[in-house]
Amino acid sequence: MIAEYTAPVTAVDRRTFVSAAVAALAASGRAGRPAAAAVPEATGRTWRVDGARLARRLKDLSRFGANAQGGVSRVAFSPADVEGRAFVMEMMRGAGLEVRVDPVGNIFGRRTGLLPAAAPILFGSHIDSVPEGGNYDGDVGSMSAIEVAQVLGEKGYRNRNPLEVAIWCDEESGLTGSRGFVGDLTTEDLARPSRNGAPLAENIRRLGGDPERLAEARHAKGAVAAYLELHIEQGGTLDAAGIPIGVVEGIVGIHHYEVTVRGFANHAGTTPMDKRRNALLAASEIVLAVDRIVRSVPGRQVGTVGRLVVRPGAPNVIPGEASFTIELRDLKAETIESLWSRIEPEARAIVERQGCTMEYVLSPPDRPALTDARMRDLIAGVADDLGLRHLSLPSGAGHDAQELARIAPMGMIFIPSVGGISHSPKEYSRPEDIANGANVLLQAVLRLDQKALEAGS
Amino acid sequence: MIAEYTAPVTAVDRRTFVSAAVAALAASGRAGRPAAAAVPEATGRTWRVDGARLARRLKDLSRFGANAQGGVSRVAFSPADVEGRAFVMEMMRGAGLEVRVDPVGNIFGRRTGLLPAAAPILFGSHIDSVPEGGNYDGDVGSMSAIEVAQVLGEKGYRNRNPLEVAIWCDEESGLTGSRGFVGDLTTEDLARPSRNGAPLAENIRRLGGDPERLAEARHAKGAVAAYLELHIEQGGTLDAAGIPIGVVEGIVGIHHYEVTVRGFANHAGTTPMDKRRNALLAASEIVLAVDRIVRSVPGRQVGTVGRLVVRPGAPNVIPGEASFTIELRDLKAETIESLWSRIEPEARAIVERQGCTMEYVLSPPDRPALTDARMRDLIAGVADDLGLRHLSLPSGAGHDAQELARIAPMGMIFIPSVGGISHSPKEYSRPEDIANGANVLLQAVLRLDQKALEAGS
Repeated sequence: MIAEYTAPVTAVDRRTFVSAAVAALAASGRAGRPAAAAVPEATGRTWRVDGARLARRLKDLSRFGANAQGGVSRVAFSPADVEGRAFVMEMMRGAGLEVRVDPVGNIFGRRTGLLPAAAPILFGSHIDSVPEGGNYDGDVGSMSAIEVAQVLGEKGYRNRNPLEVAIWCDEESGLTGSRGFVGDLTTEDLARPSRNGAPLAENIRRLGGDPERLAEARHAKGAVAAYLELHIEQGGTLDAAGIPIGVVEGIVGIHHYEVTVRGFANHAGTTPMDKRRNALLAASEIVLAVDRIVRSVPGRQVGTVGRLVVRPGAPNVIPGEASFTIELRDLKAETIESLWSRIEPEARAIVERQGCTMEYVLSPPDRPALTDARMRDLIAGVADDLGLRHLSLPSGAGHDAQELARIAPMGMIFIPSVGGISHSPKEYSRPEDIANGANVLLQAVLRLDQKALEAGS
Repeated sequence: MIAEYTAPVTAVDRRTFVSAAVAALAASGRAGRPAAAAVPEATGRTWRVDGARLARRLKDLSRFGANAQGGVSRVAFSPADVEGRAFVMEMMRGAGLEVRVDPVGNIFGRRTGLLPAAAPILFGSHIDSVPEGGNYDGDVGSMSAIEVAQVLGEKGYRNRNPLEVAIWCDEESGLTGSRGFVGDLTTEDLARPSRNGAPLAENIRRLGGDPERLAEARHAKGAVAAYLELHIEQGGTLDAAGIPIGVVEGIVGIHHYEVTVRGFANHAGTTPMDKRRNALLAASEIVLAVDRIVRSVPGRQVGTVGRLVVRPGAPNVIPGEASFTIELRDLKAETIESLWSRIEPEARAIVERQGCTMEYVLSPPDRPALTDARMRDLIAGVADDLGLRHLSLPSGAGHDAQELARIAPMGMIFIPSVGGISHSPKEYSRPEDIANGANVLLQAVLRLDQKALEAGS
């Protein structure tokens, strides 16, 4: 289960030479045309990432924004993010990639192929973190993508499609970079203040982007041959099952409701129990109802009340108001809607029984983004060939991949998160699991490049 | 039901003359001895407060700390409190009282009696308010006490016991003045910061007190002949029943628990429903259990979770911690203890079932303070004589009277709070109810003075 292969320099050189020669042959006289026959499909099947080097990449990156708890606070646009990005761009150049920052702040490292005008195969992740986050969310996929590029370079692989390592800008606070890439970022979004108070446009400029050229960042359907992302699961399913690879079925849709229940704030000593209109009693019943209803049907949907604020919030005052969030997630929008169709009337009945009133607002929902069936098969096939057990599962968290799914076939590879802990300094994935995931990514990229040509893309 | 009598000055003068003459007789040669026979018990039975003047007093006081919502923010030690106290002391002098501020900041207005060395009869309330409070809590009792003193002066009543109007210092944030008066305030308390950040001693000095002389503020059992306080109910029982006078059975004891439930904060998207340790689910069940258990036994006990804080409090994070208060109140300490003996194990079971842990701290409990049976009979008798219906009920709120009960027979008179609203700018009591309450206070003071002498106090 650990990285099997670290090629001595001499071995690398020899192989580089061989595959470069084959590639040159394929390129001469047939550029722009399918050339599947020129390269045996099996090219690179035995190549593996350097697990120790990959672990070093992660450790080196972890210095940027390191915090006392052993995690990282590398919030997008912070000095730690700016410095981490500079470090990563240097690392990409060292892996033989041609580095650029697009207008919305995404970093791309390109390995031009035999067909430079063809749609590129993209793979990557992000390096920004939540405040007080961990060293694996985003970092594993980013460092693995660079490691894959390094191996391809060392092996002298002559890719047909351009290959591009993508480090997306500001994943954590709203998939900013990937949304800009697929044309889902507006000039209004750019004017809006980010978490640090500055307008998003100003923040993007700080990263070397050029938000005035927003339109140039956009990509239409078909502009990308395929997108692959390796990521930690962030949940505990793989870890609990002891399975090293997750084949992601899709990224769940999210409905986020802001609910306010109003009763009447009054003296907790002088107001008899039967004369109360206690907003917290109603809210507590709703919190439990959400949990019960979400669990009442089979499936992997989740529902959470994560924020709840009680007003006025004094020990001797009956709560007059409780405002809280209800978040529902599932791979199927219909599941979410069906859950809400049971939660909403039950909440209304609770509120009425407690003598309160309720209003709520549904934020613009994140629609579920399914992975491409061919990409799932590809990942599963690669894992089988590597002797790695795998499991199909949804991604409960959002990822840049969900944006890419709008314009390209998208696939995601998960590796185990120990204890299912994420967005925490305690987030951890084992080096051997990381190397396994990176090897699946490497092999999947190789096969995509080889098959993509066959399909003439 | 409104004040019936506003004496023309001439009428007052005549009666003053008569009663003064009788009193002088009683004083000559018999000072220091019971002199019940000298004054007919019926003296003053037809006297009534001036309801219109009382309403004016309340309106004038409401200027100090008036806020935009029509209520008042006259928090103890604030400029509004300092100015309001100066105004009230002037009003007391106008009512013929000899005014002083004691070492802990209480204001006393004395009407020396025929037996100046006898224990005084005290009556009064407070004029400080909660932030964004109303114009009735404390003010009604304070203005009525001064009105009673004014009437006694105008009628030329020659009291036997000294009569003292008390305006207690800083009722709202912990009965500071009355605790100092009964010897329950320590030098540690004086060093502790008040709500405004300054040490209590400094705040008391600002009001003209002299905290260095704390010991001189203390009164032992027997140093006060009796204490009477008129107050708004702050609950809705009298208002709902349409009954003008409440005879207070006692002031409830309060147990205040600070509870913390800990689960595990994790990603709300990636953590399956059956892998969660959600502190808010446990807290919600406990909130409902407190309400259910408190209601499950007959009686007027109350139980409230008024403050609840969820951490980290993000929509997409499973709550890892919920801290909240549980407050239980009843006239009997045993009732409170019996409720807790059911709540505590149920909370433990809930927390365990939710995979969480719990700890709690009980703040030093406020013990219940019962009113004196003779004082209850006195108030009820006076109300009967005035043709006012009355109802026995507990005080769910704390009052300075609970401290006075430690050293003297204590009685409290309640008047209706419209809609049971208190600690709010919407707090309201009708002028006729206020005048009725003040008349009960006036008659009760008269009878106490007359009966107290009979008992030789």
